[in-house]
Amino acid sequence: MGELRKDYILDRYVIIASERNKRPHQFRQEKVSKHVDKCFFCPGNEHLTPEELGRIKKGDSWLIRYFPNKFPAVKKKGEMIVSTDNNFFTYSDSFGMHEVIVETPEHEKELADLSVSHIKKILNVYSSRIKCLADKPGIKYVSVFKNHGKDAGTSIIHTHSQVIAYNIVPGIIRKKEDACKDSCAYCRIIQIEKDSHRKCFENEDAVAFTPYASRFPFEIWILPKRHRINITEFNDREIESAAKILKKILVMLQELNSPYNMYLHYGTRNLHFQIIIAPRLAKWAGFELSTGTIINPISPEKAAKFYREG
Amino acid sequence: MGELRKDYILDRYVIIASERNKRPHQFRQEKVSKHVDKCFFCPGNEHLTPEELGRIKKGDSWLIRYFPNKFPAVKKKGEMIVSTDNNFFTYSDSFGMHEVIVETPEHEKELADLSVSHIKKILNVYSSRIKCLADKPGIKYVSVFKNHGKDAGTSIIHTHSQVIAYNIVPGIIRKKEDACKDSCAYCRIIQIEKDSHRKCFENEDAVAFTPYASRFPFEIWILPKRHRINITEFNDREIESAAKILKKILVMLQELNSPYNMYLHYGTRNLHFQIIIAPRLAKWAGFELSTGTIINPISPEKAAKFYREG
Repeated sequence: MGELRKDYILDRYVIIASERNKRPHQFRQEKVSKHVDKCFFCPGNEHLTPEELGRIKKGDSWLIRYFPNKFPAVKKKGEMIVSTDNNFFTYSDSFGMHEVIVETPEHEKELADLSVSHIKKILNVYSSRIKCLADKPGIKYVSVFKNHGKDAGTSIIHTHSQVIAYNIVPGIIRKKEDACKDSCAYCRIIQIEKDSHRKCFENEDAVAFTPYASRFPFEIWILPKRHRINITEFNDREIESAAKILKKILVMLQELNSPYNMYLHYGTRNLHFQIIIAPRLAKWAGFELSTGTIINPISPEKAAKFYREG
Repeated sequence: MGELRKDYILDRYVIIASERNKRPHQFRQEKVSKHVDKCFFCPGNEHLTPEELGRIKKGDSWLIRYFPNKFPAVKKKGEMIVSTDNNFFTYSDSFGMHEVIVETPEHEKELADLSVSHIKKILNVYSSRIKCLADKPGIKYVSVFKNHGKDAGTSIIHTHSQVIAYNIVPGIIRKKEDACKDSCAYCRIIQIEKDSHRKCFENEDAVAFTPYASRFPFEIWILPKRHRINITEFNDREIESAAKILKKILVMLQELNSPYNMYLHYGTRNLHFQIIIAPRLAKWAGFELSTGTIINPISPEKAAKFYREG
């Protein structure tokens, strides 16, 4: 029997269609070739990207480098203030900054293949880009995300993350903040989920679990155990702890050759910092778009067992 | 320069990334073969589907037939009441009815290929399924939708629609209803859009336009000009008028071989009935999932021009 489940705090429902269920390994995708004729993100082609904003050095070369997106969704010009004087027609220019973080010089590598210390450096770059961009004039939110695989919307195979800083606070963030304004709902959720059959990984500083109302097959969240409102607040060990768990998760998703999106959620006030990983193994179709109710073909409990035991 | 736009009434933003812009015909997809070894929806295989709920006859055979989905997302058993006693864990069984409407016996045909009078009959079946299911015990909403093409989530090529009647009113419907509780926002939007450069088609009873904050490339809405809260309220001519406009839209999308979802939106109170067509020509990636802000690579104004002029 399937279940209808509501998100912990959001007005958001899923149907766990357990009777359509497959075993985890039946979700496995074909491996995709990483070959391209010319990769703009590979060493030697640095002159083909927009001017570098920064790099993590390795010897004479680089381990990680970041620069503006050549095809930005938002731009640092035009009217940044959202005009709300006309009820039906609220707008601004698409104002902001759009950056790319190339995670490794090695074209064939995936984020899952990198060492914990390397992943830690990438998380530190996320943190530093948020710090750098959050206070720029007009910027209300800095979204850090990653698209892995074609079904997750990536167009360039060489593993990279992206940053879009723009001029609104996303509705989803405002809703999560509202639910946490008196006390942090996620601190309580962690207490419950860390002893549940949805718990996947835990170390001194972080915990990962498949959320009760997962909208994606194998959806998993990494949360710091202590109440941190942003990755910028993490100490060195907390970054390392998050990197360790992230690596474990990505290695398991790699077993399925799963495309995935990864993104950071955080607020400005009381909201608990979150790393969300959304594997893209099922399509949202007419029912999902129409109702916002998502059909998930695997239960979070089974997904958690897969993360723990394979 | 791109724009950030908010939906007419919902807390929902899009970025119109006009500088990433392609001309409409550059969105064109490869045509997909409709061949399958054995089609469960074809005449002669009626015994392979669950027991028929009804049909529109044509001679000794059928023009349209409908029956329960063999792999339902919801089922007419279990606990239908959504338990809300535990704040973080709100649930019920996935209660409801899930049906399939096969739109034509002809395997090779698409909805766009059918005559207006045939499409009209399909809309009448939508209306009759809503009437039949809406008042069943436990049912709070009857979602009628269609998935056309693999990227729109269909698994069976033979053209069909689906109905899922289930035990919650979707949040999106409640939000639209809330925005219309004093007076219908959509009646006013129609007045504006019918004279705008987003208007695509209009006849005596219906109008179609690309919404100001379109989330999908070539997204288009069909609305009855008079305030109707459901298709079940349409008179015969109003059904025909909607069918005429739907046919025009689908013929244009067929030029792009565009996968699409189509769905009906309606409330129980003051909300204006809507047919929404969401072409699936762009993927929602990490930024979209993370922020709910959707990057749309073509402006609704250009999309409208395509619908009007090709």
